Amino acid sequence: MKIVTKSIGSGGAGTNKFINEEIVKRFSNDKLNKLRDASLIEISSPILISTDSFTIYPEFFPGGDIGKLSVFGTCNDIAVSGGIPEYLSFSLVLPDGYDWNKLEKILDSTKKAADLVGVEIVTGDTKVVDGITTPIINTTGIGKLRKDLNDYSNIKLGDKVIITSDIARHSVSILLTRGDLGFEGDIESDCCNLYDVIKGLDYDKVSFCRDATRGGVAAVLNEITSKIKFGFYLHESKIPISDNVKYFCEMIGMNPLQMANEGVAVLIVDSDYANDAVNIIRESENGRKAEIVGEVINENMVLLKTEVGGERVVDIPVGELLPRIC
Amino acid sequence: MKIVTKSIGSGGAGTNKFINEEIVKRFSNDKLNKLRDASLIEISSPILISTDSFTIYPEFFPGGDIGKLSVFGTCNDIAVSGGIPEYLSFSLVLPDGYDWNKLEKILDSTKKAADLVGVEIVTGDTKVVDGITTPIINTTGIGKLRKDLNDYSNIKLGDKVIITSDIARHSVSILLTRGDLGFEGDIESDCCNLYDVIKGLDYDKVSFCRDATRGGVAAVLNEITSKIKFGFYLHESKIPISDNVKYFCEMIGMNPLQMANEGVAVLIVDSDYANDAVNIIRESENGRKAEIVGEVINENMVLLKTEVGGERVVDIPVGELLPRIC
Repeated sequence: MKIVTKSIGSGGAGTNKFINEEIVKRFSNDKLNKLRDASLIEISSPILISTDSFTIYPEFFPGGDIGKLSVFGTCNDIAVSGGIPEYLSFSLVLPDGYDWNKLEKILDSTKKAADLVGVEIVTGDTKVVDGITTPIINTTGIGKLRKDLNDYSNIKLGDKVIITSDIARHSVSILLTRGDLGFEGDIESDCCNLYDVIKGLDYDKVSFCRDATRGGVAAVLNEITSKIKFGFYLHESKIPISDNVKYFCEMIGMNPLQMANEGVAVLIVDSDYANDAVNIIRESENGRKAEIVGEVINENMVLLKTEVGGERVVDIPVGELLPRIC
Repeated sequence: MKIVTKSIGSGGAGTNKFINEEIVKRFSNDKLNKLRDASLIEISSPILISTDSFTIYPEFFPGGDIGKLSVFGTCNDIAVSGGIPEYLSFSLVLPDGYDWNKLEKILDSTKKAADLVGVEIVTGDTKVVDGITTPIINTTGIGKLRKDLNDYSNIKLGDKVIITSDIARHSVSILLTRGDLGFEGDIESDCCNLYDVIKGLDYDKVSFCRDATRGGVAAVLNEITSKIKFGFYLHESKIPISDNVKYFCEMIGMNPLQMANEGVAVLIVDSDYANDAVNIIRESENGRKAEIVGEVINENMVLLKTEVGGERVVDIPVGELLPRIC
């Protein structure tokens, strides 16, 4: 079995060979191929920049792997902030002795994801260390701003809340893959390119957008509530969730609204645009299950009208969140 | 002893507390403080971008630590490419159970280094994992281009080669700190802000610049030689090196020209500007030992005139380079 050795990360001939044969050949573009210490790019201001180090365990899971996640995760942060992802840095920290075939699978899926978003990987780095058993990947993305979708002051009374896909699949997929709970299943992570889901919208009619990663939809809405005077009223019956995910969450006693997603955005839009917005989102591959789930109200809290007709407050997750989920 | 726990990296209340009390308070600026998923910045194109994941072991060493290194290392890549470092992303991967005091020391020295360069840390991420014993830090830097100093075609016959400081100190410092060789000593790493060293130069008279990190001065000059038809003639007697570093390298049988630096640039400048350039560099705190060490010749190799009067070829390092030196 071919394995990763320290030589590919130590800056000598082994590193050059790895960069040429695995990185440049795969991610080829005119900026990366020059192999400069710093790559030259053109982009017009204002610019959005976001970084993330991905430590997900296990590194392969139904619906994705750490390579795909490291591209979509960072590009989604650019997209939901109102930008068009354009360039990405890609930095690998690999376990000494790591399976070369797994590394190639990760690099292939990184490339595929970058192509789907339309970003160029323009600069990178590789290190090899002891101690870890799965790769750690950092990506930093930069993109051009279309319209700022993270300005809390744009949120107004009566705006509608849209969730772009069924929730909690990423968390449940990882939990099942780890097998710690004694359950089996093949629920796929929702890990996807959110720019494709929202790009068709009229941004002038979108008040706010954020992806519901760690802490889920509950964390997003409660964070917003902490910054504005309004709150949210959600209708449980409208919240998109698959039957098997819902069943799994009930079994383990977790609230799906608090669970991490990797391909679900929460949008707050003009009330008279909400139906059009949902229809546009549903045309995208990963937005088919989009729903209008609630509205902005004049009370500073997140309220849920339950399916049985009661009302309860949706809190932020308390205690320990699932570690190494992204 | 206060230690790092998984909660500061898992996205919940512990993460928010850490970001507010340790990150925002320390690195405060109007972009970072907004705590957006993607920060908004302004910068005019063309832009230089560079990324590096720092895995140095040990994380504290004479003359620096991983925090300082992670700022200077990436900013130096921007600087020697001809840019002005402006913004930095900062992503921490911390060992579960890591000493909180050490973490604060690293964050303090990160802040100090960023202020010295004049870069703003505008976005970041924190994860906590098992397995590693020292932090891994990724920084991605972006800067405005002053003049492209990585264009090989600008190098011309007769240009002079300048080394901005005495060589091999970073490698020797790390080797001594690790103690693997049974020697002791307190040689300080040269880890420094290279933009401060070169910024006073007239870039129109500089043909090329690169920092001599892994593989040392030998790797830089041999890489250039592989891209152009010319070569280099170096005078060993002119190469700046401290007596104790030179002595240590002789003892362990390593060529100081092949050893890593973290604050030494190799500059190729117009021959009639070389004296002025050295004088300007020497005015900076970390350029006081700058020397003109050789010139561009019409032979495609790197030749060294030795102190005893012979001539030998300077090769790139062969075999395993020292791992986890940066």
